[in-house]
Amino acid sequence: MRFTSEQRLDDGVLEREFTLGEIPGILWTPGSAPAPLILMAHNGGLHKREPRLVARARHSAAEYGYAVAAIDHPGHGDRPRSAADEQARAEMRRAMAAGEPVDEIFESFVGPLVDNAVPEWRTTLDALLALPEIAGPVGYTGMTAIGIRLAVVEPRVAAAGFFAGGYVPRAQREEARRITIPLQFLLQWDDKGNPRQRALDLFDAFGTKEKTLHANAGGHADTPWFEVDNGNRFFDRHLK
Amino acid sequence: MRFTSEQRLDDGVLEREFTLGEIPGILWTPGSAPAPLILMAHNGGLHKREPRLVARARHSAAEYGYAVAAIDHPGHGDRPRSAADEQARAEMRRAMAAGEPVDEIFESFVGPLVDNAVPEWRTTLDALLALPEIAGPVGYTGMTAIGIRLAVVEPRVAAAGFFAGGYVPRAQREEARRITIPLQFLLQWDDKGNPRQRALDLFDAFGTKEKTLHANAGGHADTPWFEVDNGNRFFDRHLK
Repeated sequence: MRFTSEQRLDDGVLEREFTLGEIPGILWTPGSAPAPLILMAHNGGLHKREPRLVARARHSAAEYGYAVAAIDHPGHGDRPRSAADEQARAEMRRAMAAGEPVDEIFESFVGPLVDNAVPEWRTTLDALLALPEIAGPVGYTGMTAIGIRLAVVEPRVAAAGFFAGGYVPRAQREEARRITIPLQFLLQWDDKGNPRQRALDLFDAFGTKEKTLHANAGGHADTPWFEVDNGNRFFDRHLK
Repeated sequence: MRFTSEQRLDDGVLEREFTLGEIPGILWTPGSAPAPLILMAHNGGLHKREPRLVARARHSAAEYGYAVAAIDHPGHGDRPRSAADEQARAEMRRAMAAGEPVDEIFESFVGPLVDNAVPEWRTTLDALLALPEIAGPVGYTGMTAIGIRLAVVEPRVAAAGFFAGGYVPRAQREEARRITIPLQFLLQWDDKGNPRQRALDLFDAFGTKEKTLHANAGGHADTPWFEVDNGNRFFDRHLK
């Protein structure tokens, strides 16, 4: 893990960009150390520098004392995009707008994304936990599909918060039943890109006994800010 | 409003029983005054001294500075029970256990309960807001059916938290669309006495733009304690 930039922000949080082999990422750490860790996985075409993601990460570090890490998944953010992925994403947007079924298109690029991203998260986790300023335990927050796989295969992840989840690859719909860690599942009730009933069915399928659903009125990007605090308090209950 | 008992509890909360005409109630007030007010409506056959209700009321007063009031609805707690209500309740339990439809039985005793209880809550509210130690604004928490009617007819109620809601009288299913105040709707995902899909349909029907659903794994009585804090924080956002 090689740090490529470092700045102390006005909320006291230390923000460092890093690379780990081909993986570019950012690590936010609070003044207090060693800190428990939250892995923050953004979705779709988002970049690790997306402003809402950065605001949430800094809030978790400054107000709740967590170290927070984000990486750009293969084909995302600072990483080379494949023409096939770009085409699949454009086709998915077109099919959604036309009201056509999107499962097969979704499967074709999110299935491989999960397969590729999860080993990278585990490699990143190895490197992060080797830093003296990070202690564990570890939480995961963000994209549902990657989170399901990680919750099933990575025993160091002790609690997870998932977002949306209307579309999830077939493999993760099955894996959902095998999750045993505490979960908080956040969805937007009127999210046009995430069919509500499918998200509710996924919540129902999660195997863990300790699961909470939070749904708020509004579209995909309308999640109220108080859910950021709810997410941190959820981690406080399970990681501290 | 006549206070019939008074004791200072070890958490600093003042607990007073009162009667207001035929209505028996309890008022918990924090050390700090004047305090915003939460109306706490228990359901079914519960008594205003039911231990979980008392624990929640004291927590809201001691930790969040709310005055909290509970009353026994007509036919509940300390009040005379009608033979017809008792019979309807027994019949409802029998029909539920047998897997038979219960809507008509439910309608026959909860419809009138709402019609009778809501004016009593409004009378109680008049009396409570006349006390120097209570300032408003006012929140409501508890039984869904009574809360829907109160949210629609009583402009002094500024925010409401509802629980369960699998069965709600026809009138309240219609009134749900007319609610405009912020709502937090809490349900238990595996509550055998409250059909899940009906509760979700009710959440969907609420007319307010500011609504949040919290669902937790487990049966009717398994709500995790952290939801009590979530409820108080919801009121903090809207009443303080």
